[in-house]
Amino acid sequence: MRYELYYWPGIQGRGEFVRLALEEAAADYVDIARMPARAGMGMPALMRLLEDTAIGHPPFALPALKAGKQVIAQTANILLFLGPRLDLAPKAEAGRLWAHQLQLTIADFISEAHDVHHPIASGLYYEAQKREAKRRAQDFRVERLPKFLGYFEDVLARNAGGGNFMIGRRRSYVDLSMFQVLAGLSYAFPRAMARLKSRWPRLVALYQRVMARPRIAAYLASSRRLPFNPQGIFRHYPELDG
Amino acid sequence: MRYELYYWPGIQGRGEFVRLALEEAAADYVDIARMPARAGMGMPALMRLLEDTAIGHPPFALPALKAGKQVIAQTANILLFLGPRLDLAPKAEAGRLWAHQLQLTIADFISEAHDVHHPIASGLYYEAQKREAKRRAQDFRVERLPKFLGYFEDVLARNAGGGNFMIGRRRSYVDLSMFQVLAGLSYAFPRAMARLKSRWPRLVALYQRVMARPRIAAYLASSRRLPFNPQGIFRHYPELDG
Repeated sequence: MRYELYYWPGIQGRGEFVRLALEEAAADYVDIARMPARAGMGMPALMRLLEDTAIGHPPFALPALKAGKQVIAQTANILLFLGPRLDLAPKAEAGRLWAHQLQLTIADFISEAHDVHHPIASGLYYEAQKREAKRRAQDFRVERLPKFLGYFEDVLARNAGGGNFMIGRRRSYVDLSMFQVLAGLSYAFPRAMARLKSRWPRLVALYQRVMARPRIAAYLASSRRLPFNPQGIFRHYPELDG
Repeated sequence: MRYELYYWPGIQGRGEFVRLALEEAAADYVDIARMPARAGMGMPALMRLLEDTAIGHPPFALPALKAGKQVIAQTANILLFLGPRLDLAPKAEAGRLWAHQLQLTIADFISEAHDVHHPIASGLYYEAQKREAKRRAQDFRVERLPKFLGYFEDVLARNAGGGNFMIGRRRSYVDLSMFQVLAGLSYAFPRAMARLKSRWPRLVALYQRVMARPRIAAYLASSRRLPFNPQGIFRHYPELDG
């Protein structure tokens, strides 16, 4: 099965959580919008998908994954679908639901991280909501970020499988997503993260463990990995970093 | 199986999406925090769950559902679990993923509806972020609300099963959640919804169809249905209604 990933070509964004899973599993996939338009892909192919009124299950937003004729959207839903197929999720139903529950909590966290720089409207420029962003960033750094990361640290501590991974004794897509969240936060809030990270030793170790996995390390060193930038979910504005 | 729902007792909130599914299916369930503390339930039981360090799969937030020994959190995840058990979801995997994808899009919409009155910090009073709320409400009414409801209207229009329900020819938990979203928006933004609703005839018909279902009608008329109020997700502040 060759998977087709549809996502905006210039940012890591939510697509990155899917990319990391496909890369870790060495899955056969094409990142459609980053391929040439002359080969029938690129942005025109992405726009065709979004405008295709014949799709019975249309996505509200990207990323979307095409698997054969199936079009699946919502990042956590895509990972729910891919998990068992790429051997990146527990086999039993209870374990799969737990992985998905963690992924949905990560999704909530990501939305809040995004809204730090866009508290008023996602359609307005940052500069048009900078004053409000400063207020929201203060709450995010002091209240929300420690609350979320404290929770995930506790999940590692409670893991009866030893705490090397979020769930049991094996890596899952949740570990890859947790890595990405920590990478994004460290990019966006370097001062806040440097000050706080000693509180979360298990998460820091998980971050390093994921980054050192051979396929992830190869991916991160490749041109397939886009750099963080000020168009993505995680943005570095020094005035929001306290 | 007797299900135990753990949710804050004074609001509909995200718990309501689970309640509607349990009610439509006439499931055996207890709304723990609304039962008496002297019977071992009520708020003390809810706090015990949240503080229980022996839970291997702790919830980050409520609602949580207890099914036997399993504790499941994240509203959409609870519905993913309950769907097949209560016959409220398609049977095939592709259909279940589609139902879940719609539910996750509803979850995103709900978060945005909440952030209209709390754009800066969920931990601050509305009055402390009223100015920012007015700006965000403008964007929500003009851009986001029409975008989301236009999408859901289109899903009904594309449904090859006839468009009486969101998916196929049978009601699912997604229809119940869609009803709740429309009820909440009509409470919070009566002027905006009255002005706009002619754009979404299929959604209005779905809303009425769900409300007329015998078990839902009985539930809505019962004391189990809490009224909307200014502590929930959907809040009526006239200054945010344009």
